[in-house]
This record gives sequence, C-alpha cells and structure tokens, in this order.
Amino acid sequence: MTAPTAPTVVPVALADRSYEILIGRDLLAGAGAELARRFPGARYAVITDETVAEHHLDTLIGSLTEADLGFTSIVVSPGEGSKSFETLEDIVDGVLSARLERGDLLIALGGGVIGDLVGFTAGIVRRGMRFVQMPTSLLAQVDSSVGGKTGINTRHGKNLVGLFHQPSLVLADTATLDTLDPRHLRAGYAEVVKYGLIDDAAFFHWLEANHAEIFAGGPARIGAIAASCRAKAAVVRVDEKEAGVRALLNLGHTFGHAFETACDYDPERLVHGEGVAIGMVLAHEFSARLNLASPDDAARVAAHLAAVGLPTEISDIPGGVGTVDDLMRSIFQDKKVKRGRLTFILTHGIGEAFVADDVTPDQVRAFLEDKLAA
Amino acid sequence: MTAPTAPTVVPVALADRSYEILIGRDLLAGAGAELARRFPGARYAVITDETVAEHHLDTLIGSLTEADLGFTSIVVSPGEGSKSFETLEDIVDGVLSARLERGDLLIALGGGVIGDLVGFTAGIVRRGMRFVQMPTSLLAQVDSSVGGKTGINTRHGKNLVGLFHQPSLVLADTATLDTLDPRHLRAGYAEVVKYGLIDDAAFFHWLEANHAEIFAGGPARIGAIAASCRAKAAVVRVDEKEAGVRALLNLGHTFGHAFETACDYDPERLVHGEGVAIGMVLAHEFSARLNLASPDDAARVAAHLAAVGLPTEISDIPGGVGTVDDLMRSIFQDKKVKRGRLTFILTHGIGEAFVADDVTPDQVRAFLEDKLAA
Repeated sequence: MTAPTAPTVVPVALADRSYEILIGRDLLAGAGAELARRFPGARYAVITDETVAEHHLDTLIGSLTEADLGFTSIVVSPGEGSKSFETLEDIVDGVLSARLERGDLLIALGGGVIGDLVGFTAGIVRRGMRFVQMPTSLLAQVDSSVGGKTGINTRHGKNLVGLFHQPSLVLADTATLDTLDPRHLRAGYAEVVKYGLIDDAAFFHWLEANHAEIFAGGPARIGAIAASCRAKAAVVRVDEKEAGVRALLNLGHTFGHAFETACDYDPERLVHGEGVAIGMVLAHEFSARLNLASPDDAARVAAHLAAVGLPTEISDIPGGVGTVDDLMRSIFQDKKVKRGRLTFILTHGIGEAFVADDVTPDQVRAFLEDKLAA
Repeated sequence: MTAPTAPTVVPVALADRSYEILIGRDLLAGAGAELARRFPGARYAVITDETVAEHHLDTLIGSLTEADLGFTSIVVSPGEGSKSFETLEDIVDGVLSARLERGDLLIALGGGVIGDLVGFTAGIVRRGMRFVQMPTSLLAQVDSSVGGKTGINTRHGKNLVGLFHQPSLVLADTATLDTLDPRHLRAGYAEVVKYGLIDDAAFFHWLEANHAEIFAGGPARIGAIAASCRAKAAVVRVDEKEAGVRALLNLGHTFGHAFETACDYDPERLVHGEGVAIGMVLAHEFSARLNLASPDDAARVAAHLAAVGLPTEISDIPGGVGTVDDLMRSIFQDKKVKRGRLTFILTHGIGEAFVADDVTPDQVRAFLEDKLAA
C-alpha cells in the first residue's frame, strides 16, 4: 500500500471529444470536488450495480454530498445479463424521472457491464448526454472505460447494439481493486498483457518481472494501468471508430467471444478476460501454424498467463465449448466479419501483432478442429 | 401531373457525413438502380409500416429485385406508438436475424415515425450502420428525413431517446404524396410554411400564391419541397447538433409538442403538423405580446394556414389541452429547456425568427392563461 499521491493523468486526444483519465488510490473520496471543478452547475445520476454499491456507493455519495452536488442513484442487478434492452430502458427511465437535462452527467460506477450500459444510455438520452467513467474492475480500468465503445447484448451476440460515445472524464480508483475477487483481477490482467503482446515487447517483459507487485497493489499496479491506458488511448486517437488499426485491440477477442457465447456468458464457467487469455494464446498458435511466428512465442505467452493463474487452453473451460460448427457460427456472426472474410488479429511474435483481412474460414476451421481434437 | 424528369438534387454538406436529397416523381421505381450505383455490394433491410407497405412496398421491392440487390423486409404497425423500445427491439432483431453487416444499409420507407425509428436503429446496430431515407409523407420529405435527428418516445415525452445519425441518401418520391390523406398533406405543409416564417418572407409570399398547385401535385410541389430541404440543409450544415441556430427549426414546436402531449399523441385529435401550425401562430402572437412583432403578422400567418385548412387556435383541438399547469409541465420537460430557463423561438415578423434564451416561465404562463381563457 502506498500513501495517497496526486493521480497519474493520461490524456485521450480526440479533438472536441478529448478527455483525461485520472489514475490513483482513493480517488472516489475526492470525486465530488473533482466534478464540481470540471463541470460547474451540472447534476448527476450515479448508476451502479448491487455488488459495487455495497463496497463503494457510500464513498462516492459522501463525496458528492460534501461537494454540494445534486444527484440521484440508480442500482441495477450485477452481471452481463444487465446488458439488455430491459435494463437499458429502466436506466433511461430513471434518468428521465430525475429530470436530468442535456448538460448534466451520468456516472458509471462499476465494471465493464456498468460502463457499457451507462455510456450507451448517455449516448441516447436527449440525443446525447455527457458521462463519467468510474471503473472499479481492472478490466474496466485498462480497457472498457477508455475509448468510447458502449453497448448491450442481444440474442444474436455480444455488443451488437451500441455506439461510440466518449466519456468526459475517467476516474480510476485503484483501491477499488482491493475488493475485487482474485479471479476477476486475473481476468482484467489478461487485457494488460494484451497491450504488451500487440506492440510493446518491453512492456510484456516488464509484466513477466512485476506481476506479483501488480496483483499485490504496489506502485507497479498504477504503472501497469497507466501504461495500458496510454496504449489504448494511442490506438483510439488514430482510429476512434475501428476502421483499421483499432482492430488490434481485438487480439484474442474473436476466439474469446466465441468461447463466451459457447458458455452462454455464464461467469461461473468463463469471464471475458479468461476468454481473451485463451484467445491470445490461440492467436499466437494460429499465427505459428500459418508460419507467421515462432511457436516459442505462443509457449512464452501461455507460460506467463498460466503463471498468474489464467486459463490458456480450450480444455480449461469447464463444460467445453461445443462443436467446431458452433464456434464457426459465432465467429462469423461476430461484428469483425467483413463481406464474408474474417478480419483476424495475427502476430509475427510478441509485440508484433497485425490486422489480417485475408484469413479464410477453412484455415480457422482446420485449426479449431485440431485444437478440439487435442 | 408532370412527365417524369431528372430528380432535383439538394446537397447536404456535412464533411464526411455529406449526402444528397433526390426529389422527383416516381423515384421509387428506379431506387434499386440508384442504390446499386451508389453502394456497390451492399445488402438491405427495408423497414416500413403496414399502411405504407400496402401502397409502395411492391414498387420498391420490384426495383431492388430488378437491380439484383439482396434485401429483407420488416413491416411494423403504423402510428406514433411504434416509436417505442419494444418496436425498436423488434427491428434490431430483424436486422440482426438477416445477418446484415456494418457496411450494409437500412432503408426507411415511410413517414416520420419510420424515419426516426430506422435512423435510430441504424445508429445503434453494430455501433452504426448506414441508412437511406425514402420518405413517403410531406412532413418527412421536408423535415424529418433531413438532418439526422432520430429517436423514439418514452412516457416522459417525445423523442427523449435517440441520436444524431445522418442518412447516406434521401430519396423523396413526390408521387407517394398522392396516396396521402389530405389531412396529413396539410399537416406536412405546416412545416413548409415554417421555412418561410423563419427567414424567407419571399418564400412565404410565394406559398400564399401557389399553395393550390402544391396540394394538387403540380411542379410547384417539387419546388416547395426542394426549397424546404435547402432551407433545412443550410441550417443543419452550420449547426448539426442543435447547439444554436438549428433551434430555429423548432419555431412553433415548443407549444406544438405540449399540445401533442396533452392529446396523448392521439392522431385522431392532433397530428404533429397541426400542433406546429397552432404553435407557429402562438409564437407570432406571443412575440407581438412581448412587443417584438406586429400583431398583423400573426394574423397573416393564421390566415394562410386557415386557407389551406389547418387549425390555428387552441380551441380547434378537439377535447381541449388540459390546464395551464399541464401545458407548463410539458414545456419544461421539453428537451429545449436549459438550466430552468426556456429557449423559445420568437420573431420580429414574418421571415425574422430568432432564438430567445431569456423567456421566463411567468411570461409563458400569463400568455397561455389568456389564450385558454379566450
């Protein structure tokens, strides 16, 4: 544990949609003063889930009250099931009932589900309100709270409904991770590793050396989160709406989403970061099979992920993932499909990922058949 | 009736979101060829309502088939009631079931309800798809299909959920207005008159002289629609997201929306354009009362609207509009309220409207009390 210091600031430069990410311990307690300074006269709706509310809502409410800010609170059920039209409609109704106006702000206090839901709500109420991300999971702090992707799930797949809507501020209190169960901390860590694998081998090596301190909550935790946010911000800056290079952030995600679908998004069986961990190993193995990368890199990635306790094999998923046909259907319904060809993130080695748009379904099928048979 | 000619083209200049409005008779029959030329390789979902489907869906489908385009059709119930989360979710499900990808397009074939719903759907499916407006009502052709406002209603009011999402093309077939019932044609005409009242007195005088030909379907109809679209495009170009001058397009709408709310959006009692007609007269009367304009202008506006058969008085609304308190509540929940003050569109006379942001609730209340007592 470290003494409170000034937060680390990571700017996200997006012209008139630019904003800052503040990262530090115990930021929630000072959130009210920060908001009052940045958004004079605004009112707020804090949206969170029951689990997060239990740990952090009082702290945030106390800080808003102390700063004399007007607000309402909306608490929804925890879990991926809340990324639905039904919960969206409930939140919209709550925000409108509180008579928030277009200049007011929503606050997303929670993990990725809350961030996605609240960002989407903010994007569509009164044709666009501002919102603040206050991510309380590692996954949300290093990934989903940055970049403006918002949305809900449908029976056809994950995140198929949503929009790009940038927050006006991200406030990542790293102390909230102390209340996170270890499995979810590990799952978020998979996305941290991803930034090293994409284009920063030195960061991956640093993670291999420092992961214990990151998990324990030492200064390396803030460093790892800030480095991840900087990496994501750099990609989002040049490709806000995923027309090209932003797709790199999907390293491991095409396979990962297919596994999540196969598990019906049941967090008992698989959470997002675990799917991504297995997916990243597979992306390296698939690249090796296509003679693009050395199999040694795939092994090194798997070894590091296993060292922190993450799954690395399809067989690590309890209950299995169905047939190759099931997985292929998921992959082809995924939104990264373009005109029947697959956009896949492949790699030439650790830190050398690239967007491939010429992967054929046959190549994917043959690879998955071998993996499932193994 | 005129012989078919090349469509009139009105450009809407919005940087990378620019598009064209094509206006002419019998354009639906050639829509397939037009789309094939503009969007090579794309597939389509045609979304329409039962009433419009009966008159125009076969024509459009025939034209898509002739051009060898892939498409699916989704038909919803007619009427304002379809601007709901429920119908939105049905359309989203239909679009995803048809496996449309991000590069494909939705087609909104219908009036304002269909245009708002489909534009919103396009804005949120896969975080943004393209769409084409094919407006079949005069209201939609001169107003709602241009400018990118999309949305649905909630129990808190009209259009409180939605977003700005520009179409990729607007194709206005003026022959579709021949199947419109006269009352809806008149209602759309109110929005045409609005463009004259905002900043073009000469256009208003031309309308006084040519309204009969516009209603009969002569060449003046295309002229009036093109002039309206040009006027709206000019405003949208300088203020796409209604930060300022675009609010001028709300002339008559703050009162109008309150009346629509009072009538529970029941089209038997009041349709949007009728509310706007009465609202425009009131905006002129209210301006005269504030010594901003001559009462003669209010009388001249009322006379022209009455000449085409539009209502011009609150007492023209069957069943009444409730109490002043009811109306005030509607007006204050309206999204044009800023920090408790009313943004109102007032006028110095015909063709001289302006955005006033200093109207007090007391002024509005006193005016409405006098009108309801009259």
